[in-house]
Amino acid sequence: MKWKRSERLVDITLHLLEHPHELIPLTFFSDRYQAAKSSISEDVTIIKETFEERGAGQLLTVTGAAGGVKYVPQMASEEIGKVVSELMEKIGEEERLLPGGYLFMADLLGDTHLMDRIGKVFASKFAHHEIDVVMTVETKGIQIAHSIARYLNVPVVIVRRDSKVTEGSTVSINYVSGSTRRIQKMVLSKRIMQSGQKVLLTDDFMKAGGTMRGMKNLLEEFECELAGIAVLVEAEHHEEVFIDDYLSLVKLCKVNEKSRTIELSEGNYFEKGGA
Amino acid sequence: MKWKRSERLVDITLHLLEHPHELIPLTFFSDRYQAAKSSISEDVTIIKETFEERGAGQLLTVTGAAGGVKYVPQMASEEIGKVVSELMEKIGEEERLLPGGYLFMADLLGDTHLMDRIGKVFASKFAHHEIDVVMTVETKGIQIAHSIARYLNVPVVIVRRDSKVTEGSTVSINYVSGSTRRIQKMVLSKRIMQSGQKVLLTDDFMKAGGTMRGMKNLLEEFECELAGIAVLVEAEHHEEVFIDDYLSLVKLCKVNEKSRTIELSEGNYFEKGGA
Repeated sequence: MKWKRSERLVDITLHLLEHPHELIPLTFFSDRYQAAKSSISEDVTIIKETFEERGAGQLLTVTGAAGGVKYVPQMASEEIGKVVSELMEKIGEEERLLPGGYLFMADLLGDTHLMDRIGKVFASKFAHHEIDVVMTVETKGIQIAHSIARYLNVPVVIVRRDSKVTEGSTVSINYVSGSTRRIQKMVLSKRIMQSGQKVLLTDDFMKAGGTMRGMKNLLEEFECELAGIAVLVEAEHHEEVFIDDYLSLVKLCKVNEKSRTIELSEGNYFEKGGA
Repeated sequence: MKWKRSERLVDITLHLLEHPHELIPLTFFSDRYQAAKSSISEDVTIIKETFEERGAGQLLTVTGAAGGVKYVPQMASEEIGKVVSELMEKIGEEERLLPGGYLFMADLLGDTHLMDRIGKVFASKFAHHEIDVVMTVETKGIQIAHSIARYLNVPVVIVRRDSKVTEGSTVSINYVSGSTRRIQKMVLSKRIMQSGQKVLLTDDFMKAGGTMRGMKNLLEEFECELAGIAVLVEAEHHEEVFIDDYLSLVKLCKVNEKSRTIELSEGNYFEKGGA
């Protein structure tokens, strides 16, 4: 079958979206469509311009024998602003308020379309960092971790609260939760990480950062490197801060159970460079 | 800015992939590109044919005032076969064997590219079923649930093992685990589901099906309906079977710890209709 340009454009777009951050040789496409490399180059140029015009991401083209094209997911700032606004509006809903000043978030974390966009927001910022793995601790951070990792095309590693038989031999650490000051445990399968890997930590919520510090300690046990920290919501607090270099989308400033109000502001995502 | 056909094709493809199972009015695109509806119709036809040719999914076009175009993700059988073969090859690796005959799977569940394709495999089968929610129990089923739900464009609901303050008021049930015969607990936030919802259950592993039966009981508590069951790996066993109508990708036939062999076969996915 002979492919027309219009069909090639659709098919190449599909292929690139399914393989983010992967260098695809132009010969892959020229073989697939039985087309000249020069035609494929023109196709790629059209796609690149459309992606950039629309703010869907970059197409990096690498020339030479080992060359090809790589799709780097990026979200335009305007679009990121919309995602964060939507998130703030939803988190600020009075009905989320639970006894003790906690916020109900399970519905937001289970909203696959929202999580997908949040994953792209963080993946945009870390697009040009070296990241081998995204790590989180069970349970609520998993959907965010998966969404970010999908756009970065790297695996997810999940730290457990208890050792499980299905994890094989594990490394376990104790850490002090920042807000409750309780001693808690974290367990990670030994074979899931290799030393030297660069790790992006993520979670849905961070207060004093005790859990993040726990994960940082785990990284040291595995001789891995911290590549960044991404949290959905950070809570303002007056305790000792364990973590200072992180990105957050939303900041929870104040919760008043009596008047049932939730005060939020934008997180530090927009202040921090790196994209 | 005036969009050319080639740019429109790329942009419409992007938009459709980001909004699976969502009816998008053609006027959305004609407004966006300042183009005649007839031109957009032609664009859609080209994309539809390319998607079908490639086995990437269907484009359903609905005519009339409330009409539009809907992308229904589908994976071609040949591609599904490849995903299942890859999965079987990986699950069959001798190194996965843990003491007690358990299999180490955390790396596979954390492989975002593999999980994405597995999500599409199951979403293909359930593409024309009415599904409102994908449900799993923490922890290992979450990545599969998220991947399926993303392609179906529905939310994920996660059943917890213990009640947590951040879940608000909950419904809790006890159930008997099929393989260990122990009594276990499942907890689900009350406000996360509405009665009458149609629910697809999923998990990474199923033996006698006790956990699945537990989730089915939870559905009854919430007056929800079972819409299907999707498991990655089912284990052959001689105990009483609690669940009979499910889809599996891989069947674990026999594990021999002494000779360190893992016998696998294809699951029942290919036998069952419904796509």
